[in-house]
Amino acid sequence: MAHRAPPSVVLAPDKFKGSLTAPAVCDAIARGLVRVWPDADVRACPMADGGDGTLDAVLSRGGERTTRSVTGAGGAPRTAAYGVLDAPEGRTAVLEVAQIVGITDPDGMAVSVAQRTTRGVGELVRALLDDGVRRFMIGLGGSSTNDAGAGMLAALGLRLMDARGAPVQPSPQGLATLARIEAKLDPRLGDTAITIMSDVNNPLCGVEGATAIFGPQKGVRGDEIAALDATLARFAALAEQATRRHAAANPGAGAAGGLGFALQLVGGAFRSGAEVVARLVGLDAALAGAQWAITGEGRTDAQTLLAKAPAVVALHARAAGVPVTLLSGAVDSTALPALGKMFDGCFALPGGPLTLAESIADAGALIADRAEQIARLWAARGSA
Amino acid sequence: MAHRAPPSVVLAPDKFKGSLTAPAVCDAIARGLVRVWPDADVRACPMADGGDGTLDAVLSRGGERTTRSVTGAGGAPRTAAYGVLDAPEGRTAVLEVAQIVGITDPDGMAVSVAQRTTRGVGELVRALLDDGVRRFMIGLGGSSTNDAGAGMLAALGLRLMDARGAPVQPSPQGLATLARIEAKLDPRLGDTAITIMSDVNNPLCGVEGATAIFGPQKGVRGDEIAALDATLARFAALAEQATRRHAAANPGAGAAGGLGFALQLVGGAFRSGAEVVARLVGLDAALAGAQWAITGEGRTDAQTLLAKAPAVVALHARAAGVPVTLLSGAVDSTALPALGKMFDGCFALPGGPLTLAESIADAGALIADRAEQIARLWAARGSA
Repeated sequence: MAHRAPPSVVLAPDKFKGSLTAPAVCDAIARGLVRVWPDADVRACPMADGGDGTLDAVLSRGGERTTRSVTGAGGAPRTAAYGVLDAPEGRTAVLEVAQIVGITDPDGMAVSVAQRTTRGVGELVRALLDDGVRRFMIGLGGSSTNDAGAGMLAALGLRLMDARGAPVQPSPQGLATLARIEAKLDPRLGDTAITIMSDVNNPLCGVEGATAIFGPQKGVRGDEIAALDATLARFAALAEQATRRHAAANPGAGAAGGLGFALQLVGGAFRSGAEVVARLVGLDAALAGAQWAITGEGRTDAQTLLAKAPAVVALHARAAGVPVTLLSGAVDSTALPALGKMFDGCFALPGGPLTLAESIADAGALIADRAEQIARLWAARGSA
Repeated sequence: MAHRAPPSVVLAPDKFKGSLTAPAVCDAIARGLVRVWPDADVRACPMADGGDGTLDAVLSRGGERTTRSVTGAGGAPRTAAYGVLDAPEGRTAVLEVAQIVGITDPDGMAVSVAQRTTRGVGELVRALLDDGVRRFMIGLGGSSTNDAGAGMLAALGLRLMDARGAPVQPSPQGLATLARIEAKLDPRLGDTAITIMSDVNNPLCGVEGATAIFGPQKGVRGDEIAALDATLARFAALAEQATRRHAAANPGAGAAGGLGFALQLVGGAFRSGAEVVARLVGLDAALAGAQWAITGEGRTDAQTLLAKAPAVVALHARAAGVPVTLLSGAVDSTALPALGKMFDGCFALPGGPLTLAESIADAGALIADRAEQIARLWAARGSA
């Protein structure tokens, strides 16, 4: 059949967790599209939500991936990857907290949550300040720590002392004997813009706080929550007093075990991770003049509607007047009524009965096949 | 989003074997489409290929489903369903051989293939001749018999005798002692048009014949093939001599254990089952002025390209200039390159990892969901 001119298509998927990075998903979709339109104008904008995969997405559009050895959550050195890119606003570092104190790091998980520290995050920020970086985008997803960011603040100059003036460790265990704080924070932070990528809105303490809500999945026992929460509350009060700032009650202070508190204390501002990534990868510029957008993720359900990457892509596409189709590993059928209001067609990978393991193992080929088929339908409609 | 006027959509799926009849598949697709276009012009043309499901498809467009008790393949009475409809060319009976001598009938399968007979097929034809019917559409798929149609011909007047003139049974076992045939065929057959719905091209006998190719799946042992093939060859030779007609070497004579031979001997003509059904359900009239067609089947693979119902629908849709999309239970990925030339997008039922049993059990809801999603894409493209 004769088709009209090939469309400009924006590819803006999140990673397919467990199988492909977002750039690899873009490549697979593109392979399918070029089977239908060999000269398609494919605009890849790999997405992320500020958590795992943010570096992959952002660095696919330029910038440099570097590693540096810093202190891991358990105290042992850890090689953390981060990115530095030249944004319009200046040199910008992109950090994933999970690269430093990630819940998938066995060294960190080998010690109790009471001993884990975010010191390495502060070490990396300080090193980048030494390199002249004054803009940070920090993704908070996937941390193993619950230290209210005491470790990071200590690495950036906060001095933590017990009743006798002796230094205490910046971990929940150390904070239990905390009596006094001196705020000798790195003065360069005053010139620094920190964007915190997170969709968590919890405060630092209380029944909706970091310890009560996220502690258990990091290994906090039910009977430990109250004491640990009180320790963080006291640390926060002393830190706020020493810095003459307030952050513990802010939405998001409870993100990443309280790192959201500490980052706000040094001037960081929360933004939706997917919105930040959309900006860094140039989503709106790509959508301008495009005819179609395709987004997706490993599994789509009702949670996706809550500011996850495909939802953010859909909102931007709608604003640009560009139809947007979802192609995910799986689509929860119970969410389809709501998803139908957001996406112009939701599609999944299997071409027939298939196990999850098969779907993950064969994701690239399945994505290409499915992208080809939706493109065939698209092309037919266009020439009908 | 605002969409243009809802399209006219032709729904022409085959059954989804093991889950839904073709009319039920049409209903499920329509449920999905009306979620997108509440006032869609949906034109249901349930399809079949002349085998199992042909009655369901044809009678959905009118006509009467009736049952009659005739002799089953194993000799016991069997209630067979058939249809009678008013076609432009006159009253027409639609028969599925599988309803009478089906391989799924346990009574027939309880006796050896040497004892099975197609007598019931002839009984039903004769009864319908008594009712004044002179047009027959007979689907040959799914038979358990291998009697060269001797049973049917006997019921229609062919007299089979042994060397002493005693009648022999119209089964392979009886035909082993056949010596002479008298053709006292029902004279009304001379005024009767018989269309044989089958895509089988095999001759009656030889290495490509009914016994060698289809016998084993009906229970013929490897060491029985030669003798049984010779028995059928001798019967055919005597029957051809008695009727002064020839059919054994014709393509399709080997269909349905040689019923294709017997039906040709009484004037029947082979046609593609799906083409006959397409005509009976008014596919071309529905396609006229339609914007889109959707076809499908339980499982689509490279075999589908060989004149199966979705392929026939695709050819008719192409001829009418109507894009045609495939929605099947499963689509074999290795066939996609070829299927892509025939269909404007091929889609499968699973919305994520799913077992075959789940897919079959939930087929209706899955079809509706998938139809809705391809309709959303279609609608978006139309308004883009």
